Amino acid sequence: MINLDEFTITEEALRRVGHTENPRLREIMISLIEHLHGFAREVKLTEQEWLEGVTFLTRTGQISDSVRQEMILLSDTLGLSQLVVAQSHSRPAEATEQTVFGPFHVEGAPNQPTHGADIARGALGEPLWVAARVVDATGKPVSGAVVDVWQADASGFYDVQNVNWQIDEARLRAVFKTDADGRFSFRSIMPVGYPIPSDGPVGEMMRATNRHSMRPAHIHFMIKQAGFDVLVTHVFAEGDEYLDSDAVFGVRSSCIGNYVRHEPGTAPDETWVVSPFYTLDYTFKLDRND
Amino acid sequence: MINLDEFTITEEALRRVGHTENPRLREIMISLIEHLHGFAREVKLTEQEWLEGVTFLTRTGQISDSVRQEMILLSDTLGLSQLVVAQSHSRPAEATEQTVFGPFHVEGAPNQPTHGADIARGALGEPLWVAARVVDATGKPVSGAVVDVWQADASGFYDVQNVNWQIDEARLRAVFKTDADGRFSFRSIMPVGYPIPSDGPVGEMMRATNRHSMRPAHIHFMIKQAGFDVLVTHVFAEGDEYLDSDAVFGVRSSCIGNYVRHEPGTAPDETWVVSPFYTLDYTFKLDRND
Repeated sequence: MINLDEFTITEEALRRVGHTENPRLREIMISLIEHLHGFAREVKLTEQEWLEGVTFLTRTGQISDSVRQEMILLSDTLGLSQLVVAQSHSRPAEATEQTVFGPFHVEGAPNQPTHGADIARGALGEPLWVAARVVDATGKPVSGAVVDVWQADASGFYDVQNVNWQIDEARLRAVFKTDADGRFSFRSIMPVGYPIPSDGPVGEMMRATNRHSMRPAHIHFMIKQAGFDVLVTHVFAEGDEYLDSDAVFGVRSSCIGNYVRHEPGTAPDETWVVSPFYTLDYTFKLDRND
Repeated sequence: MINLDEFTITEEALRRVGHTENPRLREIMISLIEHLHGFAREVKLTEQEWLEGVTFLTRTGQISDSVRQEMILLSDTLGLSQLVVAQSHSRPAEATEQTVFGPFHVEGAPNQPTHGADIARGALGEPLWVAARVVDATGKPVSGAVVDVWQADASGFYDVQNVNWQIDEARLRAVFKTDADGRFSFRSIMPVGYPIPSDGPVGEMMRATNRHSMRPAHIHFMIKQAGFDVLVTHVFAEGDEYLDSDAVFGVRSSCIGNYVRHEPGTAPDETWVVSPFYTLDYTFKLDRND
């Protein structure tokens, strides 16, 4: 078909992808083209704006690498990630809620350190002892679950944000296995609120749309055990000023934990601490995937 | 706002970009979020599909560089580019129609060669002599117009697709200026139909959606002169089998030219040609931008 105009082109583009054999891909392509064209037509996108958009997405891909994922950050800040998370999981009242994965997880973190180990590995921050438990909806312990933990340091940076970072320099990330009682524990540092990376295209977008880039203090957890829905979540710090306006829309009330502040004294592992320190007791409730 | 679900998150994301000061950017962001969320909700996009989409867009950015623009190619093959072109230009019946810019233009092509010059510069193909004229809607010549010309070789490749290409090795591209009578002319090679690049994410998409990747034979032109709408167009070869199904939706009937085949003999510039050769006479009609 020739002589397509701004109306008939959508019809023709839909006809072209109509021959997709995989029915699910066909469905996705049809909806994608309808919404993409609908957007461009609705705002009467100009050629200059189109070029700026193309360039923006290109740069978003180009600034991404094995440890930085700006395209995920873009999806996060547009609320798309949390929408997909929300519609992908049933939410029985008794299970811990899912939230965004974020761009800073890496495979290959130090595996199965001793329970109680210090995962900060020298990262500065106020000491924190985490004692956690993984249970099912009825409260029964889930033993042998694989628990991926990752968090930012007291300056708000993940170890991977250091450009020359290597996996053997992993800090503030580890993979634990729950014991017979569903427990795991570690020493770390108190998470702080931090801004998402602002030196790339997403930072430009946040500034241009007059949004703050802060996330409330949190630690990331991903918990896997056969028979259960994989739980990807954070434990946020109660009282954080950004709980209401997380730049990536990630906060759920069941994901807010009570990080308790203590004056200098004896920590849970009998360490004598000369500075104030924190403790977090938290129970993750997994959802059966049957 | 916390505890956003797959419905309320759209409302909250719209509220966040509602503080954008630039009213046009605000309008674009609102429509973008509505359509992006609308798409994800309509197809109930899964986390795995979302990740595949994010990875696809990331790779599309990463394979792009100063001479390859896969993100434009993606926009072209989804029909978005032509939609934006179509809605951005008035189309008085007497003006030559606009079509997609494509990913292969480069700045800095050999500038203002003599009229009649051979722009192939060694590229193989059947000889072609182009004699063109640029006029306004009333048929009056447009002199001093800057005419950017670029095309693929007989194998369907643009010079820039050679990975080590440098601008001083430019072939099949040049920038002319029209004379007092609005004319410019050059020698080149007959364009052939060719597939868009298939070794990147866009090629994967074309295969997965069972579409052919061919473009009908064409030469690109971009014509600029003060007082006129910049004309970005192609001259397609009449009779090409892909005119009806151009992979990037670019064909307009006013952009189809009559490339005439001749038996061996004397070319328009008095050259004796031992093989068959082609001539193209074409008149571009510019639209005043007042």
